[in-house]
Amino acid sequence: MIFSKRSRYAENPIEEEDRTAEVLQKAGRHVIQLNRGDPPVYFPTPKYIINAYEHALEEHKTAYSRAEGVHALVHAVQERYRRLYNMHMSEESIIVTQGVSEALNFINSALINDNDMAVIIKPYYTLYNPVLRIYGGHPIMGIYDESNKWDIDINGLEKKLEAIPRERRKRIKYMMITNPNNPTGTVLSASVLKQVVDIANEYSLLIISDEIYDEIVYNKARFTSIGKLAKGMPHIILNGASKDFDATGFRIGFMVIPGQDRLSNAIKSKMSDYAKVRLSVNTPAQYAVAEAMSNISEHKKAIGAMVKSIEDRVNYAAKLISENDFLSMVKPNGAFYLFPKIDMKRLRLKSDAEFVDKLLKQEYVQLTRGSGFGMPSHIRIVALPPKDILGYAINKINDFCIKYAK
Amino acid sequence: MIFSKRSRYAENPIEEEDRTAEVLQKAGRHVIQLNRGDPPVYFPTPKYIINAYEHALEEHKTAYSRAEGVHALVHAVQERYRRLYNMHMSEESIIVTQGVSEALNFINSALINDNDMAVIIKPYYTLYNPVLRIYGGHPIMGIYDESNKWDIDINGLEKKLEAIPRERRKRIKYMMITNPNNPTGTVLSASVLKQVVDIANEYSLLIISDEIYDEIVYNKARFTSIGKLAKGMPHIILNGASKDFDATGFRIGFMVIPGQDRLSNAIKSKMSDYAKVRLSVNTPAQYAVAEAMSNISEHKKAIGAMVKSIEDRVNYAAKLISENDFLSMVKPNGAFYLFPKIDMKRLRLKSDAEFVDKLLKQEYVQLTRGSGFGMPSHIRIVALPPKDILGYAINKINDFCIKYAK
Repeated sequence: MIFSKRSRYAENPIEEEDRTAEVLQKAGRHVIQLNRGDPPVYFPTPKYIINAYEHALEEHKTAYSRAEGVHALVHAVQERYRRLYNMHMSEESIIVTQGVSEALNFINSALINDNDMAVIIKPYYTLYNPVLRIYGGHPIMGIYDESNKWDIDINGLEKKLEAIPRERRKRIKYMMITNPNNPTGTVLSASVLKQVVDIANEYSLLIISDEIYDEIVYNKARFTSIGKLAKGMPHIILNGASKDFDATGFRIGFMVIPGQDRLSNAIKSKMSDYAKVRLSVNTPAQYAVAEAMSNISEHKKAIGAMVKSIEDRVNYAAKLISENDFLSMVKPNGAFYLFPKIDMKRLRLKSDAEFVDKLLKQEYVQLTRGSGFGMPSHIRIVALPPKDILGYAINKINDFCIKYAK
Repeated sequence: MIFSKRSRYAENPIEEEDRTAEVLQKAGRHVIQLNRGDPPVYFPTPKYIINAYEHALEEHKTAYSRAEGVHALVHAVQERYRRLYNMHMSEESIIVTQGVSEALNFINSALINDNDMAVIIKPYYTLYNPVLRIYGGHPIMGIYDESNKWDIDINGLEKKLEAIPRERRKRIKYMMITNPNNPTGTVLSASVLKQVVDIANEYSLLIISDEIYDEIVYNKARFTSIGKLAKGMPHIILNGASKDFDATGFRIGFMVIPGQDRLSNAIKSKMSDYAKVRLSVNTPAQYAVAEAMSNISEHKKAIGAMVKSIEDRVNYAAKLISENDFLSMVKPNGAFYLFPKIDMKRLRLKSDAEFVDKLLKQEYVQLTRGSGFGMPSHIRIVALPPKDILGYAINKINDFCIKYAK
């Protein structure tokens, strides 16, 4: 076939059933889509952000922008990190991207040669592994330990790294963590993060921390940014407006590279080169997010209300799941996903993929298979809808399990 | 160093002097930037498009969208191609992208294995070669012949293809053309395009035609879409809202894959996979462009007025350039660039790169070096500003040449 070898890795399990869902919808079925983590579907993007967006349009902010992001947004991001995490950095430390997905693309293209490696910890966000593999890399799979509240199995990871011959270790380019985690909703503790930093130090790994849910934390959990602990070490933080600012459809992400060391500075410059190769990011959306991020009182109101609702919905959904004898789950305290384990051997279903496919076709509820996150026998459920819809959908899941019980 | 081998190709000559320009601007200099082809800087995006964008925001179109593009935009693109070029195609034939640059990224990632080849014709748009090389490909360089009004040197290209051993020829994955051309402004004639189709047929090459300037044609030239001539052959047309709809900062591009053959269908499906890996494109901007494209009477008024101004400005600038004894030029009849040849041996300057760098630092006029388009000893000038600014800038260029005359 005409296609490249790498192209077989271009897949996103979260959207792989979208075509099936579209066909069902065209046939008049109402499909409840709990596959995409898409807050604006259930929490309209706050009015003050919409106003800021319209203001930018009225002011004719419609030309290409600076490749690395408009100064207004770069400054707002600087200020956000100063205010929330007491981190200080230069303008060059921030690169605005078309979502975190573009940042992943830049990073892997810039770092990964054929047969290089990267530490990814499973269950991982669906795109980490495909994008690494598209660029010829291989994952070294760490584990979030389900039997230990999804904390990182640090000892297991160290053993894996030790098993790699010393001369090959320099080909391990980075270690990727997600905090709060998608799909498990785990907020990593400062002590676990310290161990992550120690490992990265020992094996000279660039730390990449995807913190896109950093303000969506509840059930009394406390979030710590890697930037507070990795001072003096090269690290990249990924974030954006999609979740905290309830604006997924704007496609505004950013990379933060706080270090002033030689490697960090080289990475900033390389990321700027990559930014130039795609010219720029949607201009009015950048101004909208700049203003949204700077209007702290409005943002606090909006995120406060949204997180309170999410906490309520997640806990409600977790309770309903706990009534299902075929599913078991660690309760999340960040993001807005449930990631229960399926007791597969008690069901007449071969895999999580079959579970998800049949559930969609028979009950019109769309989830994502756990194997898409590197963890078979699990399902990911988006817990964003109001309780009546969420309750309806989870009852469908529960009935479905009973229907397929052995 | 930590970086991948491919990453050295991540560069965009159009923006390479942006940092220098920024420093000059901060020092209080007024820099005339004639490097980016950015219509909204001089022609505000039409009000009816802004209104459509705001309407989408008011309607809360702020969630992720369908990965391949919202249906409203896909239908508008279908209708546009039916209306303008009498081309009929299915929904699946259209993939909305974050500008043409994202389309280039998808295509090269999907098609190019290490040491595969692609036909690129120089002078080419700056990004074709870097993106091909990032994915391990090598260009087979065809020539737009300056001595023959920049028409494609078809005989020369055939000789190059013949010189490649037969067993290696199947590794030539595509042939890329740009019509109207950037940087030369040439509109390719139907007879030249027919020869392109014949060559593609003979060597089994996928044709990729970047037609982003298809409505910006003047001086009585006539544009022909490859879609009219390549019927029954696999081909991809690249286009978007940036130029024809005067909305570069929206970052809305699209790929059109009209064929119904097996290869075309496989490409559609592969491009959909790539689209899913980056989730979606800015949602309200897609709705804005859908409405802009459907409002034919407003669009005709807007594009008519803009093209008339561009024709006037380009011809004025061309006349001023013709008074410069050190520059010579084929007059453009599409897009909005001038691409004069510099008589380097008569100047005390080593290269087009030095020309551009010194011009910026001494005269505060920013151009792009011809070598960035694969054609040294040339400069690209964006002819979008009103005549007073354009005249001022070109006089600066003319004075600069005299200053450096041998």
